[in-house]
Amino acid sequence: MSDETATAATTEESTTGRGVGQQRFVEELGAGLRPGQLAQDEATQTIYSADQGPMLERHLPLAVVWAESVEDVQHIVRTCSAYGVPIVARGAGTGVSGGAHATRGCIVLSLERMNRILDLNADDETAVVEPGVINAELNAAAAEHGLMYAPDPASFKISTIGGNVATNAGGLRCAKYGVTRDSVLALDVVMADGSLLHTGHQTFKGVAGYDLTALLVGSEGTLGIVVGVTVRLKYLPREVHTIAAFYQDFRSAAAGVLSVGKARVQPAIMELLDNGTLVQLDEMNGSDLQTRGKSLLLIQTDGFGAAAEAAVVREVLAAGGASVTTEASEEAEMLVELRRNSRGVEVDDEFRVGEDIAVPRSKLVDFVAALEAMASRFDVRLKVVAHAGDGNLHPTFWMDRVDSATDADALVRLNAALDESIRVGLEMGGTITGEHGVGQYKLRWLGLEQPEPVRELQRRIKELFDPAGILNPGKAI
Amino acid sequence: MSDETATAATTEESTTGRGVGQQRFVEELGAGLRPGQLAQDEATQTIYSADQGPMLERHLPLAVVWAESVEDVQHIVRTCSAYGVPIVARGAGTGVSGGAHATRGCIVLSLERMNRILDLNADDETAVVEPGVINAELNAAAAEHGLMYAPDPASFKISTIGGNVATNAGGLRCAKYGVTRDSVLALDVVMADGSLLHTGHQTFKGVAGYDLTALLVGSEGTLGIVVGVTVRLKYLPREVHTIAAFYQDFRSAAAGVLSVGKARVQPAIMELLDNGTLVQLDEMNGSDLQTRGKSLLLIQTDGFGAAAEAAVVREVLAAGGASVTTEASEEAEMLVELRRNSRGVEVDDEFRVGEDIAVPRSKLVDFVAALEAMASRFDVRLKVVAHAGDGNLHPTFWMDRVDSATDADALVRLNAALDESIRVGLEMGGTITGEHGVGQYKLRWLGLEQPEPVRELQRRIKELFDPAGILNPGKAI
Repeated sequence: MSDETATAATTEESTTGRGVGQQRFVEELGAGLRPGQLAQDEATQTIYSADQGPMLERHLPLAVVWAESVEDVQHIVRTCSAYGVPIVARGAGTGVSGGAHATRGCIVLSLERMNRILDLNADDETAVVEPGVINAELNAAAAEHGLMYAPDPASFKISTIGGNVATNAGGLRCAKYGVTRDSVLALDVVMADGSLLHTGHQTFKGVAGYDLTALLVGSEGTLGIVVGVTVRLKYLPREVHTIAAFYQDFRSAAAGVLSVGKARVQPAIMELLDNGTLVQLDEMNGSDLQTRGKSLLLIQTDGFGAAAEAAVVREVLAAGGASVTTEASEEAEMLVELRRNSRGVEVDDEFRVGEDIAVPRSKLVDFVAALEAMASRFDVRLKVVAHAGDGNLHPTFWMDRVDSATDADALVRLNAALDESIRVGLEMGGTITGEHGVGQYKLRWLGLEQPEPVRELQRRIKELFDPAGILNPGKAI
Repeated sequence: MSDETATAATTEESTTGRGVGQQRFVEELGAGLRPGQLAQDEATQTIYSADQGPMLERHLPLAVVWAESVEDVQHIVRTCSAYGVPIVARGAGTGVSGGAHATRGCIVLSLERMNRILDLNADDETAVVEPGVINAELNAAAAEHGLMYAPDPASFKISTIGGNVATNAGGLRCAKYGVTRDSVLALDVVMADGSLLHTGHQTFKGVAGYDLTALLVGSEGTLGIVVGVTVRLKYLPREVHTIAAFYQDFRSAAAGVLSVGKARVQPAIMELLDNGTLVQLDEMNGSDLQTRGKSLLLIQTDGFGAAAEAAVVREVLAAGGASVTTEASEEAEMLVELRRNSRGVEVDDEFRVGEDIAVPRSKLVDFVAALEAMASRFDVRLKVVAHAGDGNLHPTFWMDRVDSATDADALVRLNAALDESIRVGLEMGGTITGEHGVGQYKLRWLGLEQPEPVRELQRRIKELFDPAGILNPGKAI
């Protein structure tokens, strides 16, 4: 495992070994762009060589280019196609599976400058945006009309709609409002040959032909480069009630999630935090959450029924042994805000790997118990947050760098815990990734979830879209 | 046009002209099935030669086979593959686009006997069903647990989940609860080579690899035969409020739809009925709806906020000039039931073609006005119902058979009105089919909506899944 998780940077010049053609390629690439749209300095190459996912082997891109228009993207793709140079497209680089990690001999195509909201039609309840628009900015624009763009990954303040589309991003309020795919109506896509394709429909419903839009959502830049996104907006709820419920153990809190379901209440948000996460939040914020319980369940109800739903939620959680906030409290809302920021500044690395397993809801309690047992058995630290409404858990197995330096066996144990958690999650009917995407890091587990014929079919779809294999090779499938 | 719309049955024996091979094929097909699973009598062939869509040219299938297991489907597909015989799969045959019409030299594969609910897990809020399960039966089983299967095409009492998946069926409550695709988590599919593939995930969220499930939903049996469906269930609302609002003209009623949107209320159902539909309902049911108004808007709110939402809806509709039922009335609920059954016994034919255009919501008023002008200009009759919440209209241009018999020009005018309505709908940013599917009948318009590169990409996906082209050829794309 230590080989696989090495992070040594390789020098592209020596590994690609085709200096002249490369030089010509970069010149041709730059000739079609304006000054400031291409960089080759090592500092920039390094920054753009990775997203926030764990790094197996760092490659520096030949160049970083910033597209400012659809035509720019077409020029870039055509040039790369002519020279056989791989393209790793990225938005804000906030992905956590390495989907935007640079690969050998690639260029990185940043779409962050294509950040205009081209249309926001409040009557149609739709918006058309360029891929670099920040999720939160779209939401701010929509809010002026009493609307919202529903998918809200924890990164929504800094991540782009294009990146959200690439990973089919989830978020906190998916159980009620759906994931990215459910809000995307149409896409403009630059294909591997540089042609521009429009898929989908401007209407809420549309079933003409195959659902190419859904196929492209979540394809992590391996089938085409998304340069335009038409989304459906939903109604911003007028009323929101927030409930914080502290439990003395994590399993009781997970059972609380099921009790809300049994009461047939659909909260907008249902976040489950374990003791490790409470400790971290206390350290980050100077709070004293640990003294109130070993686990926290945060629930938001919204809409016209928010108050009535909150009353039912409080009742069933209290009946399950929780210490529940008794009214819509500022503190509970503040806790949701803390939860949204609970990743803080930490970035996954080989000593800290956040997972993204989803299991059927009824398995939440058992899976959490299994994770705790694994952490203990493999002697690694564990913290877990979960979008509990849809059974999507983010367990993080981790260890202090200090520990690992004095413990040669540490990384082996960490990876064994990771593998074991994946195995058990799959056994329970789960998936290796609920919302982060396979990217590069989760490829090692994909074969455990999908048998060879399913993978082969995806490879053939990839070949159909991208015969030369220049679009984000080695990712997603 | 009259050639295209001829309905003369052709004798397959003479058109296929390969009696011996055909005989051997049918024998081999039957040899792997039990008695009663294959029929070749003309009465059965005729019944199974068509769904409820308009017929361009009737073909009788070589045989009708009823699969009772996944293995049956695999045997049937393998035998057809060996002999190059096309397969038209069908559920209850309630489709209205001719997606299940028999094609030349095909067999019809009925999945209606595969009608078991294999699993219904109330804690997971999921169900696994065979394709022949009737939508209403799944809902009845789910209701025992306070759950529902949300997509509710008007045919839900008689249509199958497999057919719903094949067409990505919509329904009345889609604007709030989503279409079929949004409720399907995983599929079991028999591929063109007879192999069995499982796509998707048992969890609410899952982004491992490409979304093959979404690609298959709505593919109308052209990519594979769906033999198992895992669906997400939603919570059966405890409270439902129904509002009937009569208007003196259709355009005001369409404007009422937008006013509800502007109030940021998301009804579960928002059905718009024009005068032609009211006349028909009165004829069918002996009611006197026409005396109350020229157009009817039916709205249901549901969930914990149903009463509060209904109050807002009543207020904004009354402000828009509607005569609104003042409380949750039995009559309004009865009207929704009438609307659900408003197709009655009528089946589309060349004299009566129901469309399925969806337009952006803001275009509802203009499009309805344009439709009325077309009916007048082409001197054909018009009735319109709309799932107004998502801009999905079902205009029906029609004429009495008596009229058409004495008016040689009638069918030409009817088809001109149809074509014109499609053209105008597309100009307004619409789609030719919101929820019924392209099937066979709407192929003539697909090129107006989708440019050649988009269609070519779909053809290549079709080739990838079905190289020999035996799965429902000539449909959907």
